[in-house]
Amino acid sequence: MVDVGNLTVGVLGGTGAQGKGLAIRWAQAGLRVLLGSRSADRAEQVAQEVAEAGGGSVKGCDNAQCASEADVALVALPWEAHAETLRGLRAELSGKIVIDCVNPLGFDSKGPYALEVEEGSAAQQAEALLPDSRVTAAFHHVSAVTLADTSVPHVDLDVLVLGDDREATDLVRALADVIPGVRGIYGGRLRNAHQVEALTANVIAINRRYKAHAGIRVTDV
Amino acid sequence: MVDVGNLTVGVLGGTGAQGKGLAIRWAQAGLRVLLGSRSADRAEQVAQEVAEAGGGSVKGCDNAQCASEADVALVALPWEAHAETLRGLRAELSGKIVIDCVNPLGFDSKGPYALEVEEGSAAQQAEALLPDSRVTAAFHHVSAVTLADTSVPHVDLDVLVLGDDREATDLVRALADVIPGVRGIYGGRLRNAHQVEALTANVIAINRRYKAHAGIRVTDV
Repeated sequence: MVDVGNLTVGVLGGTGAQGKGLAIRWAQAGLRVLLGSRSADRAEQVAQEVAEAGGGSVKGCDNAQCASEADVALVALPWEAHAETLRGLRAELSGKIVIDCVNPLGFDSKGPYALEVEEGSAAQQAEALLPDSRVTAAFHHVSAVTLADTSVPHVDLDVLVLGDDREATDLVRALADVIPGVRGIYGGRLRNAHQVEALTANVIAINRRYKAHAGIRVTDV
Repeated sequence: MVDVGNLTVGVLGGTGAQGKGLAIRWAQAGLRVLLGSRSADRAEQVAQEVAEAGGGSVKGCDNAQCASEADVALVALPWEAHAETLRGLRAELSGKIVIDCVNPLGFDSKGPYALEVEEGSAAQQAEALLPDSRVTAAFHHVSAVTLADTSVPHVDLDVLVLGDDREATDLVRALADVIPGVRGIYGGRLRNAHQVEALTANVIAINRRYKAHAGIRVTDV
């Protein structure tokens, strides 16, 4: 079991629902959390909300400072800003473990669907733009609503962790394991990230049909 | 709850591991099962094995007769034979509910990966080739080993059922529900089938890492 208690986790796009929800749970677990956003002011505002919800050490700053000061960085950017933002953070993220949780989805009158991504997936786009980083993919299906609701002590889902670097995926699995109820499960190589990202469209369809905040568990593991 | 007890389920490609495993469980549940294969002799052989394992009424025949006599048909063909076989069964499958469980996967030295499919997914290819049928997608992640092992009475997984026809997906969900332990869960429209098929590559990666027969459960549903 990897010890992640001394890490500073940077959340790029930390003012969005997914980033904020994970930040709350990591702060609760005692990790130092840095929230990054385009606007440092906005990040500082949300950091205060995260600290109130989760306790612990939470600071807001712009994405560049967040990437620079973090030991490990979660990419929780809107898909529209994904490529452009990461292109500007190559130096700051050099040598670091990067976790991409972005789901490139579209919505029309028939509901959600997966967008085509030239590189194959958001995670592979991150890998192409950050050749000096150790890119993994994880935390795609966690319900932001459930994460932010600290009256839910036990989050009932597994996190699939993908990547080609065993040490990196082991660390990211440990970052999932610190959230009570959650298990980080190795889920394959980065080239198999597309379907994990795209499955979020199915999870949303399930949520709509069953009025749920669905998650995924892996059985027999 | 839809009553499926009086249905004859045809399994196209029923001599393969996935088709045979599901046939055993359906026979066990008391459904009439027809196993189809290119070779009627081979189908009859495997039908006897299925009847011994699962009991009940199981018959083997060629794929055309299977499609013709079935009330509902499971497509469990090898991906390589998928398009060609279905193209020849359009008349036999006309008006029927068709369930595609095929996973277009490739394997190389780095393990499993999802193949690109021109129509988007195997299920969408079936829909294109069978315009008079009601095509759904389901049963992608069930472990053939677990299904065939009748000493496992309770199969611990959910089956995602995709399709655009509510009556059809409800019936297919009921065909999942008859297997003890299994739940059929609506999983979105057919256009979101690709990622469910492709996720089988991740399930195989999980099986290899954890020496498991992994399945998927949906939480909060």
